[in-house]
Amino acid sequence: MLRDCKMAVTAFDWVPDFAQGHVRDLRVRWALEEAGLPYDIDLLRQGSQKDAQNLTRQPFGQVPSLTMDEGSMFESGAIVWRIAQETEALLSGDRDEVLSWLFAALNTVEPPISMVAMLDLFIPEPEANAKVRPHVLAGVEARLGTVERQLSDRDYLTGRFTVADLIMTTVLRDVRGIDTAAKFPRVAAYVARCTARPAFRKALADQMRPFADNAALYARQA
Amino acid sequence: MLRDCKMAVTAFDWVPDFAQGHVRDLRVRWALEEAGLPYDIDLLRQGSQKDAQNLTRQPFGQVPSLTMDEGSMFESGAIVWRIAQETEALLSGDRDEVLSWLFAALNTVEPPISMVAMLDLFIPEPEANAKVRPHVLAGVEARLGTVERQLSDRDYLTGRFTVADLIMTTVLRDVRGIDTAAKFPRVAAYVARCTARPAFRKALADQMRPFADNAALYARQA
Repeated sequence: MLRDCKMAVTAFDWVPDFAQGHVRDLRVRWALEEAGLPYDIDLLRQGSQKDAQNLTRQPFGQVPSLTMDEGSMFESGAIVWRIAQETEALLSGDRDEVLSWLFAALNTVEPPISMVAMLDLFIPEPEANAKVRPHVLAGVEARLGTVERQLSDRDYLTGRFTVADLIMTTVLRDVRGIDTAAKFPRVAAYVARCTARPAFRKALADQMRPFADNAALYARQA
Repeated sequence: MLRDCKMAVTAFDWVPDFAQGHVRDLRVRWALEEAGLPYDIDLLRQGSQKDAQNLTRQPFGQVPSLTMDEGSMFESGAIVWRIAQETEALLSGDRDEVLSWLFAALNTVEPPISMVAMLDLFIPEPEANAKVRPHVLAGVEARLGTVERQLSDRDYLTGRFTVADLIMTTVLRDVRGIDTAAKFPRVAAYVARCTARPAFRKALADQMRPFADNAALYARQA
């Protein structure tokens, strides 16, 4: 049981502005806050994520990983699903339906949203993206349309708030290039509803705090 | 228990050439074959996937979904994880480690691989992609490098063959634009090892059969 073991989540001591509030340890912090499970944060110095010590916990050299008494896990989706097994707060209703929506968030909805962010942040030439971005945005709109329809008669994807909503919210927070409030009002209200939860607010504030504390250290990279 | 219930997997009666052998019902068929569980196939007429009947099973209008006595699921990752819960054939060793690698395959390794395919198939203008494709390919190479390192002392990601290898193999089969055999020889050998399994061969042949049978029906779209 996770409740009986000492847990630590890896996170960064600093990231560039565009990533602040969006690093994926946010998902794990949020899940642990919803579950009411105690945990420590193991802050990685920015740039050390590809060092041997982190690679033993996270083979791709990213964050987060979760260290438990009995071993460690990586991938935010895997970690939050593991946490959800142990708490009614994240896994009410039909488990198969929740699992389906959790994977839908990460493997159907997130990829085109991440692709738009990648184009905007790392390939800023407008000409290079002129053909690519509209095609990808159409894919994002199709996915948001499905989520909008799913929310037509309910406040959360499967009824009550679950780990699927937690992950879907973190995915939807990163939509760029679409006026969600105008085109997908239920989606916008859903994100507002989920991010108003005290557990989310605490997780977000906790992720942000070291970035402010360490800003001076990384001033040249900001 | 899935063993005691009647299951049906949705698949297409035909898809264009580039998708043949790569539609995601392949993952579910493969998992069910490895598990030795009986199942039916519910063939969807190409073009009917956005109809109301399919949307009740698959809200995004895709395949596959899995219908069971007690309900249905969608998202290939969710379905194969559910199947794996019930069979040692897909879930040996450390469950947390297998779950981590399953999500890594779908949420870290697959996105850049899918992005290259999207650029090649749907945005064929070379100029539009000249800046984008190399950036994305560098991301694919970084992920393949991690998988190559993970396989340095083992035949499968976590020791014995599991559901994580099943999903990772289907992801790696879709790599384009990189000479995997030359640059990542352990990855290439791993894909060959996993796709040589009788359960994979049967799943692939079963997906392909209706495409050939129905080719004439769709001749104008081919």
